[in-house]
Amino acid sequence: MTTKSLIEQLKWRYATKKMDPNKPVSEENVAQIVEAIQLAPTSSGTQPFELFVITNPEKRAEIRKVAWDQSPITDGSHLLVFAAWDNYTAERIDAVTTQMTEERGELPMLNAYYDTLKKTYLPRDASVNFDHAARQAYIALGLAMVAAAELEVDATPMEGFDPAKVDAILGLSDKGLRSVVLLPLGHRHEGADWLLPMKKVRKPLSEMVTRID
Amino acid sequence: MTTKSLIEQLKWRYATKKMDPNKPVSEENVAQIVEAIQLAPTSSGTQPFELFVITNPEKRAEIRKVAWDQSPITDGSHLLVFAAWDNYTAERIDAVTTQMTEERGELPMLNAYYDTLKKTYLPRDASVNFDHAARQAYIALGLAMVAAAELEVDATPMEGFDPAKVDAILGLSDKGLRSVVLLPLGHRHEGADWLLPMKKVRKPLSEMVTRID
Repeated sequence: MTTKSLIEQLKWRYATKKMDPNKPVSEENVAQIVEAIQLAPTSSGTQPFELFVITNPEKRAEIRKVAWDQSPITDGSHLLVFAAWDNYTAERIDAVTTQMTEERGELPMLNAYYDTLKKTYLPRDASVNFDHAARQAYIALGLAMVAAAELEVDATPMEGFDPAKVDAILGLSDKGLRSVVLLPLGHRHEGADWLLPMKKVRKPLSEMVTRID
Repeated sequence: MTTKSLIEQLKWRYATKKMDPNKPVSEENVAQIVEAIQLAPTSSGTQPFELFVITNPEKRAEIRKVAWDQSPITDGSHLLVFAAWDNYTAERIDAVTTQMTEERGELPMLNAYYDTLKKTYLPRDASVNFDHAARQAYIALGLAMVAAAELEVDATPMEGFDPAKVDAILGLSDKGLRSVVLLPLGHRHEGADWLLPMKKVRKPLSEMVTRID
C-alpha cells in the first residue's frame, strides 16, 4: 500500500507497453483489484458484467494473437477480461432483486423499481442493452486501474482486439457475454518501455471544462 | 484528505439519495475531482468528452425537471454533466495528435498511429463512435467517484434523465456533444437518507469472477 493521493497515483500510472515477465503480481494484490471491481457502482446495482482472470499461458497466448500481438498480455502475470451481458433479461434482473431482498429484507419500493426497470430494458434492442452494460463495465475498469495504481501494479487497458475471437476463445456467447475490454496486470519493464519516459499528455482544463455559475 | 484505502473509500461511498443543501462542497475539493477526470485514461488518449460543472441554481432546477425530479441535483452544490463527443472527426483527432506532438516532440510512429485511427473511426456510424466515446466518459465517471470518496464528498451517478432535453438546456448539440451521465456532488444528509442505513449489496465473487489458471 502506498500513501500517495489518488492524483499522485493517477500521475504514476500509464498504459504500460512493456511489462517484465519476471515480476508477477502477487495474488494478494490481484484480489484487491478484483474487490475494487466488485465494489464498482453500476446502474441500478445490476453489475451487468463478469470478469475473467487469466494466468494460463496458452490461453493468454491465444488471446494475444487476436489482440494485435500486444506483449503485456503474456508478459504480465494476470490478464483481466471484462465481459458485459449481451442483453438484459428478466432472469438477470430478477436475480438482482432476489439478492437485494435477501440482504436488505422485503421492500415493496424495491420490487416496484425493478419491475419498472424490466419494462424499460426488456423491450429494447439487445444492442442498446449491451452498450449500456458495457458502459457499466468501464466504470469498473476505471476502478481497477485506480486499485492497481494504489498498489503500484501496472495495468494496460486494451480495446485493440477482435471481440468475437476473444468471445470464442473464452466461450462467452454460451454465457450471454461479450468481451469489451482487456486489462493485463504486471510490472513495468523499466528501461525497456518507450512510453515510460514520455510526458503524460492531457487536455488543458480550459478546453475540457465549462463552468456554469 | 482521508487515509482510507481505496477499498475502504469504496465501502464508504454510496449513491446518496438525500444531500444536505447546507453543506456545499469546497471549490478546492471540486478542483481535485475535476483533476481526476482530466487524468482519466481514455482510448488512444483522445479524451472524447467534455465536462460541465454547474452551480447555477436555475440551470440545475431546469435539469432536475427532466431528471425524474431527483433532489441531489439541486440539494448538492455542484452538478457534473459528462458530455461525450457525438462522433469522431478528423479535426478532433488531429487536435489530439497536434497536442501530443507539441508536448512530446515529432514522432513518426505517433502520426502513423493516429492516421490509422482516423481510417478506422471516420467511416463508422456516428452512433458507434458516440457509444465508444461514452464508454471513455464512464472511465472518468468511475475516477470522479473515487476522487469524491477520497475527499469524503458524496456523489450520485445518474442515468435517469432525458438526454435530449439536457442537451437542449446546455446547448450541447451545437458543440457536437451529447450528455451521457450526471454526477451531483454534495454531502449526505445524515438521518434523512433512506439508502444510507442499507447494506451495500454486491454479487459474490463466485458469481462474478472466473479464473483460468
